[in-house]
Amino acid sequence: MMAKVAHVNDDLLDALAAIVGDRLSTAKSVLEQHGRDESYHAPHPPDVVVYAETTGEVSDIVKLCAARDVPVIPFGTGTSLEGHVAALNGGVCIDLSHMNNIVVVNDEDMDAIVEAGVTRKQLNEHLRETGLFFPIDPGADASIGGMVATRASGTNAVRYGTMRENVLAMTVVMADGRIIQTSRRARKSSAGYDLTRLFVGSEGTLGVITEITVRLHGIPEAISSAVCSFPDLPSAISTVIQTIQAGVPVARIELMDEVQMDAINKFSGFDYPMLPTLFFEFHGSKNGVVEQVETVEALAGDFGGSGFQWAVKQEDRNRLWQARHDSYYACLALRPGAKGMATDVCVPISRLAECILETRKDIDETGLLAPILGHVGDGNFHVVMIMDLEDEDEVAKCKAFNERLVMRALAMDGTCSGEHGVGYGKMDFLASEHGEALSVMRAIKIALDPQNIMNPGKIVRV
Amino acid sequence: MMAKVAHVNDDLLDALAAIVGDRLSTAKSVLEQHGRDESYHAPHPPDVVVYAETTGEVSDIVKLCAARDVPVIPFGTGTSLEGHVAALNGGVCIDLSHMNNIVVVNDEDMDAIVEAGVTRKQLNEHLRETGLFFPIDPGADASIGGMVATRASGTNAVRYGTMRENVLAMTVVMADGRIIQTSRRARKSSAGYDLTRLFVGSEGTLGVITEITVRLHGIPEAISSAVCSFPDLPSAISTVIQTIQAGVPVARIELMDEVQMDAINKFSGFDYPMLPTLFFEFHGSKNGVVEQVETVEALAGDFGGSGFQWAVKQEDRNRLWQARHDSYYACLALRPGAKGMATDVCVPISRLAECILETRKDIDETGLLAPILGHVGDGNFHVVMIMDLEDEDEVAKCKAFNERLVMRALAMDGTCSGEHGVGYGKMDFLASEHGEALSVMRAIKIALDPQNIMNPGKIVRV
Repeated sequence: MMAKVAHVNDDLLDALAAIVGDRLSTAKSVLEQHGRDESYHAPHPPDVVVYAETTGEVSDIVKLCAARDVPVIPFGTGTSLEGHVAALNGGVCIDLSHMNNIVVVNDEDMDAIVEAGVTRKQLNEHLRETGLFFPIDPGADASIGGMVATRASGTNAVRYGTMRENVLAMTVVMADGRIIQTSRRARKSSAGYDLTRLFVGSEGTLGVITEITVRLHGIPEAISSAVCSFPDLPSAISTVIQTIQAGVPVARIELMDEVQMDAINKFSGFDYPMLPTLFFEFHGSKNGVVEQVETVEALAGDFGGSGFQWAVKQEDRNRLWQARHDSYYACLALRPGAKGMATDVCVPISRLAECILETRKDIDETGLLAPILGHVGDGNFHVVMIMDLEDEDEVAKCKAFNERLVMRALAMDGTCSGEHGVGYGKMDFLASEHGEALSVMRAIKIALDPQNIMNPGKIVRV
Repeated sequence: MMAKVAHVNDDLLDALAAIVGDRLSTAKSVLEQHGRDESYHAPHPPDVVVYAETTGEVSDIVKLCAARDVPVIPFGTGTSLEGHVAALNGGVCIDLSHMNNIVVVNDEDMDAIVEAGVTRKQLNEHLRETGLFFPIDPGADASIGGMVATRASGTNAVRYGTMRENVLAMTVVMADGRIIQTSRRARKSSAGYDLTRLFVGSEGTLGVITEITVRLHGIPEAISSAVCSFPDLPSAISTVIQTIQAGVPVARIELMDEVQMDAINKFSGFDYPMLPTLFFEFHGSKNGVVEQVETVEALAGDFGGSGFQWAVKQEDRNRLWQARHDSYYACLALRPGAKGMATDVCVPISRLAECILETRKDIDETGLLAPILGHVGDGNFHVVMIMDLEDEDEVAKCKAFNERLVMRALAMDGTCSGEHGVGYGKMDFLASEHGEALSVMRAIKIALDPQNIMNPGKIVRV
């Protein structure tokens, strides 16, 4: 199929304005802002941005685009990392940030229905008095719709799962404008194909997600965070593996190498030792947390971990985890004006030490400024290459490094992306990762979006 | 699309024999055994049964069938409950029970790769020395392949999830014989559409699942089971809701009404009070289990629960849960020669009490012999109507009752099937449950199986 050429003409603009009134822009700065995300990928502005306020409006907009073969690109907060929102062939960007109502919180069922533009922090702020929280926490304050679309996760996934496990149902506008509900609010169902999970991670390529039913979790009675330094990476990683295998229900277990600790110290005003470091968080009953802590302290001690620093007070914990969430920005600050290229492989945990150590060696041999950090309880880690986007040689070196890292992870039965998604930045790895299964993905894309208007040029080529 | 008429002729039989040798049968008794499951649904024998031993053989068999437009029906243990294995249009039944190798257990990663014919008990027996277990436990000793295909769950789902959460990847033979791997062994991934979850619950209609990577869990340090009777259903159900909302990580919480308790007492030789009863199981550290037990005993006491009977020794626990797993057979034994029609609705837990009480009233008004039991921690419960299959009036009455129950659950944002699946028994409910989304399921079916040869007549009509 040929790449679409958008036909965003005055006729279409008038028709869009008839739906959204003045919530429409073709101003250059607005278009530019909507064509780029937080990554190094080249931006591609759309032809027009419309701010939808209801699912019905989204449906009407998509119908207009379908009738004219014009691409549709959904936009949440623009915090993706693989060029997900780039309008590669122009088209209509549907900005969902105005759809930020929390429709209902069902305390008894521990779920909530939110519009796609609600951000994770907004939801948790809203839940403050309920004793419930929404655990998924990518670094950015992303929209729930965007987090569903990229199958996001974050630091809590080792205990609470990813978006895959924390979405019960959603409302989706299909490529022809039909509105569907992917599932019902019941906790489990065997009634047909799992459309919910199909749309989680579909990155706007199969439809526009407008409303989501998310699972909530009870705020634990006791929470404790801790920081522990290790003499070297293998010791820190061994502690992670032993913790998971001991069945400790650790809520967070995050690794930062010495380069990343340097960045965090400078950016967030800490003075941790410049050593490979684990950040832990424990959730449970008071006694349960004490038990977990005792087990993990003993394990860390076995591997030379030292200087356990505790953060029990909420403000101390918040400061610690805010620093962790800011780590990407901390990396960028190591080299002012530079851009980051973040890798995102995930491997079975038995291969994690080998994968990280080979990668550290590769970084050193390649001569990159590239901190390592990661959600190591899941086998997922990031290398943030801090590079000068103007220096073609450096960019090429970084891309070659990323490719080696992905191939290393794939050889270990891992994936090129644990949580960032594919966008247009990782498409070329999918053939190596999925083989023949990629053609099955393509068949699904063609079946549900035969005109290839839904965020075209992402995930699969058609 | 017209229903297929199978062309299983001598030419096809010869070609199949060239693949599987004498692992092929057209004996009437074998065909009959493979056309029926454990439900009341009318059996439909296939034209031939082949016993495959490798994924390659399955691929070759499917290619033969595709070339001739002949239906393919995968068969595990035949313990499904909605006519899933019925060869509605004849065709080739691929019996996977010979594919019962446990390929590898990865202790460190807490996963295992098994062939589709491995049963859940076989896997747990194999894991005995590892400290790990596979938690999903439908009543029958089903094959893992069949459990994936129906998105099975069971008594442990409230703590450990369903097959949806416990499958990491699988090998699938597609409708044209291509072999794909749906995902890799990494714990999480954002690299493309979630084919794994698409095939979980697809009931053989999109491809034949031949190998599965399942998640394993650590056997907890302490396990305690208990039985508690309540004065009435609302008291028992309120205890369940409060337990979940209190965040007790209960491993099992199962409700049986007084009729079900009578059946279990008679079938398994217990003498529990004939009252609404909860079976509990608690997993955790020694102290953690004590904490859970104290919380739940206090909650049960608040609602008039009495006579907590403990089963701590493994043999006592096994006897208790075997009785629970035998409950379907215990129901059937209440009326020798009768068949069971098992309902399977699941609703948000806030609606559970209302749903069960209205249903109990309906049973009484309709005059059915129909115990209620269920995985109430998930909002899922079963009514087993014990009926005379020869009595058309009685069967019609049971079907009408089931339809009322499903509509009641749908009106409460529930599903017609929590864990049994659709087969051909529940297809007619899917339009009410899914509305426009059913057409999306149909589009996927047509895209992946354009000839409609994969277990045709199940889940969606094409």
